[in-house]
Parts: sequence; C-alpha cells; structure tokens
Amino acid sequence: MARLALGVDLGGTNARAAVVDMGSGEIVAAHKEPLRDRTPERVVAHVRHAVQEATAAAECGVDECGRAGVGVAGQCLGTTGLVLNAPNLGWRDVPLGAMLEAALGVPVTVANDLSVAAWGEKKFGAAKGIDDVVLVFVGSGVGSGLILGGRLHQGAQGLAGEFGHVKVHPIRPTTAARRCGCGEWGCLEAYTSGMNIAARVREELAAGAATLVRDLCGGEPGRVSATLVDDAYTRGDAYAVELWGEVGELLGTNMANLVTVLDPARLILGGGVMLGCPGLAALARRRFDEAVSRSALKGLSVERAWLGDDAGVIGAALLE
Amino acid sequence: MARLALGVDLGGTNARAAVVDMGSGEIVAAHKEPLRDRTPERVVAHVRHAVQEATAAAECGVDECGRAGVGVAGQCLGTTGLVLNAPNLGWRDVPLGAMLEAALGVPVTVANDLSVAAWGEKKFGAAKGIDDVVLVFVGSGVGSGLILGGRLHQGAQGLAGEFGHVKVHPIRPTTAARRCGCGEWGCLEAYTSGMNIAARVREELAAGAATLVRDLCGGEPGRVSATLVDDAYTRGDAYAVELWGEVGELLGTNMANLVTVLDPARLILGGGVMLGCPGLAALARRRFDEAVSRSALKGLSVERAWLGDDAGVIGAALLE
Repeated sequence: MARLALGVDLGGTNARAAVVDMGSGEIVAAHKEPLRDRTPERVVAHVRHAVQEATAAAECGVDECGRAGVGVAGQCLGTTGLVLNAPNLGWRDVPLGAMLEAALGVPVTVANDLSVAAWGEKKFGAAKGIDDVVLVFVGSGVGSGLILGGRLHQGAQGLAGEFGHVKVHPIRPTTAARRCGCGEWGCLEAYTSGMNIAARVREELAAGAATLVRDLCGGEPGRVSATLVDDAYTRGDAYAVELWGEVGELLGTNMANLVTVLDPARLILGGGVMLGCPGLAALARRRFDEAVSRSALKGLSVERAWLGDDAGVIGAALLE
Repeated sequence: MARLALGVDLGGTNARAAVVDMGSGEIVAAHKEPLRDRTPERVVAHVRHAVQEATAAAECGVDECGRAGVGVAGQCLGTTGLVLNAPNLGWRDVPLGAMLEAALGVPVTVANDLSVAAWGEKKFGAAKGIDDVVLVFVGSGVGSGLILGGRLHQGAQGLAGEFGHVKVHPIRPTTAARRCGCGEWGCLEAYTSGMNIAARVREELAAGAATLVRDLCGGEPGRVSATLVDDAYTRGDAYAVELWGEVGELLGTNMANLVTVLDPARLILGGGVMLGCPGLAALARRRFDEAVSRSALKGLSVERAWLGDDAGVIGAALLE
C-alpha cells in the first residue's frame, strides 16, 4: 500500500489540503476551502475541514498520514510553528503549529510557502535529482525557496529565502518610495510583485498617466494587473515599456546576485507574474544573463516550475 | 597521539603551509614562502617547499597527514581542483588540485580561500557550534564564506560565496563605472575592496581632489590605502566622509541582503579593511542594521573573525 502524507497550502484566500502519495508525489485527493474569516481560530477550523474532506475522499484517516506539513505565505519560525508575520492573513505572532496540532491530533510542521514549494519541486518537479536549487517566485508577492546541498535551507530561525525583502531602493521614506507589505521601505517586493505593480499603475492612472493600460482595463482600475501591463508592453506602449524596463532590471539583477552568491545548478522560475507576463520575463531574463557572474552562469540551467499550484501541498506533505 | 592535518593558504604574495592538530585546531608548525614567481609550476614548487618545511618542523611526514587542503584566493571548481580564475596570481583554468597531488603524493582538496576561512571559524573560531553562518571579508578583495545547515556551502560548482561579485552599479561601462578584477562591471568589490578604494583615491588625487589624504600619504600615491582614508574620515575630512558614506552604504546594504536571504545565526566580519577601518565599519554596520529584515536581525549576532590569518590554513587542513 502506498505511504500517504498530508500537506496543507495556506494562502491569503484559500486553504488547500491534499493527501499525497509519498512514493510518486501524486495527489490522491485534495480539497480547497475558501477562508471566509481570517482570524487564526477560524482559519484553523477551515484547515481542519479541508483536511477532513481530503482524507475522506482519499479514504484514509489523518492518523494514517501520521503527521501534516503546512506551507504559509509568511515568515515562519520553522522550528516552533510560530507564524511571525503573514500580511495576506493579517497575522502577527500566531502559534499556528500548536493550534493545528491540537485541531488535527497529529504532529504539524509549519514552513514558508516558497520553501515548501521548492521542496516539492525538489522531490517531484523541476529540481528532482538536483542538490543546489534556487526557486524564485514572482506573483502577488515575491520570494524564494532554497535547496542547498540537497536539503531545504530554512536558516537559523526558519526565515531564509526572503528574497522579496532584499533592499533595492532607498530604505527611508521619500516621495517616490513605496512601502512594502512587511512594513519596511526599499524592498524588492514593493516594486516588483503583482499586487504592488497593480497598485502603482492604479495610482499613476489616477494621476493622469497616458498609457494603453487605461483602455485595456476598460476604465476600471480594479481590473489593472501585471498581465494587462504586459499586454500594453507587447503592443509597444511607452508607459509599459518604461515600467517593465525598471521592473525587469530589478528582478534580473537581484536574481543574478542570488545565483552569483549561491552557485545553484538550477534556477526555477514560478509565480503568476513571472510565468504569466512573457514580456517582463524576457526582460528580466536578459538582465539576469548580463548581471550574473560568468562562472556561475556556466553551471546553471533555468527552468519553469513544474508543479504550479500543486507544489505547495506536495512539498508540505513531504517536509521532513 | 594527536591526529594531524595539512593545510595550505595560497594568496597572491605568499603560500603558507601548516600542520594542524585536528583535535584542538592548533597550528603545530607552519611555514610561509613568498611567491617569487607566479607561474603555476613555480607556485606548486613553492607550496611543496612550504609543506616540506612545515612537516619537518612538526616532525611528521606528509603521509601521516594523509591528505592536504588548499584555500586559494580565486574561483575554484571545488570538486575538480581546477582554479578557474585567480586574479592575484594571474591564473585562468589551472588544474591546481592535480598538480599538487602529483607534487605532494597525497589527495588534495582545493577550495576558495573564504569558504576555507569560514570553515576554520566554524571548526575552531567565531562560528564554533553554530550551524548557519555567513562570513563576510572586506580586505584587498571582497567575498564571503557560507556555512549552512552545519556544512560548508560551496554550491553546485564550488563557486558559492562570490559576494564581491554581486552587481551594485551599472553593469555596462560608463564614465564613472569601475571595472572589477574579475573583468565584469558593477561588482561590489570594484567599489569597496581595499585595492579598488586605493586605486580610486589615487585617481582622484591625481585629478586634483581636495582631501587630507593627500597630506596623510606624504604626497606619495603609493602609500594611499583604506586605512589612510579612515584616518582622514575620523578627522572630519569632507572627501573621506563622502567616500566612506558611499562605501559604507554599499557594504551595509549588501551584507543586509545576504542575511535577509540566508537567515544565519551569526555574521562574522573579517579582512583588513573591515577590521582595520573602524570609521568605515561603523558606517557599514549602521546601514546594515537599517537595511536588514527586522525578523532576520532578531536571530543574528555579529562577531569579528577570531582566527585572523590563521583561518585559511586551519580551515584548509580541516576540509572534508
């Protein structure tokens, strides 16, 4: 009989639980539960329900899985199960591990969602069989997951991989500066994540910017997205060309610096902005190729993430 | 009887060999040999002679040590013993490991000098007992050594830790850009290493810069150094204040980014510029404290390197 494991992907809008075959990495059954309420107690109840549905569909008990792994979009003190800061959930210092252990009745391991996704890709995806891997994610947020020497590198506290919070711009408030969701100034994420790009474009549209994006969103600021900017860029819109030049340079240079320092064999690219905006991705890639150390580049292959949204539950299930 | 190991530190001007007590990390005997000629063949002969002198003084044979570890200031393809690029030696693609194995008659492991130094600090210095450590070195060059999860992280090819070659300025030649010793543009090292600082100040003195450094060097450009600039800074010299503001910000921000991404428990600072220029070090530290992720900072302690020039031979001797 297949050895089964339980993985949970806890994002800002949904909790998804899956029973995963540890031998093949296949999802035996999964259940997604919208988070109608984001208080820790209600979220734990949502996770519990998602787990019950998934295990019922897989015809196995939580006990049979023995333990559960959880990936959370936020800063997690890995060893303790404490979520320090999860902006999408509005959480600070939530003892998620202990709460879930009480609710599920099995040991629970909590880790950052991108560390978990990198681990999923390592076990059954684009990093299989490779010991040194950097996964860079550019979607609603920006971050990374690091597989170093064949192991998931979570750092001394479990906070490693915070690529979105490297400082790339003035770290003190200025008129042009954007504040990051983490509360600090100058973070890469504040300038390059899908949410921050959309917010900036909406502000600049409101301030009268001349751009095709205005037409593409049909005059509805709520429809502005990185994908729309990429459409405008592809059509040669000057505003989009300038914005993408800036964002592509920031992403490319900082991905290059990560590779220069860590010398991975593979760089995996994931996230809705990176995979859904081909114009931006090409600009970032060109800049990356120019900025990365020649020697590090020689040993590197670049690959798109394979597992997509499944990386979270698969990686979480297989956390060690 | 103590288990002995053989370590070699190969810099641009000297080769130093030491017999090290593996139990205590103490240097039983050492010999330093100036490199009168830097062709690979002559350097290997110098290393061989340094090893003979050190083992003779320790009254042990090379055979008793069983193997030798070598740290080289340059890019080393760790697993192969090939030195890709060692600017201080003027080397490209030198099969140092194989050459030394033939000369010494024992297996030889070659690694980057700062990886080796970090390993020395891990085994018997400022990183003892700590599993996640970043060593940042700012001296004649700039680089880092990474201990992650208790192991030396050398990367897929052995090139990890190239902190001096992250890009911090325009990567294409401009009038103000400085070219790095590695041949690329925009590298941190090109703006912050002792050699590059001295070269820049000499150029600016020649172009007529008004600064106390001119008096401090007694009108001899050859005496310009980072230490002299630090003296001028301490006395309030406006030129030095501006230069140190720029260099301190570059070093502080980029050390912060390294810590934000890797979440080490300890940051170790080493190198003649970092340890010998207290004014610059304080500026870099202030900027570091401002730019690093709040959460990563909470779990971090910062310490000066303990082993100094001995870290290289000790770390090399203990390479695994």
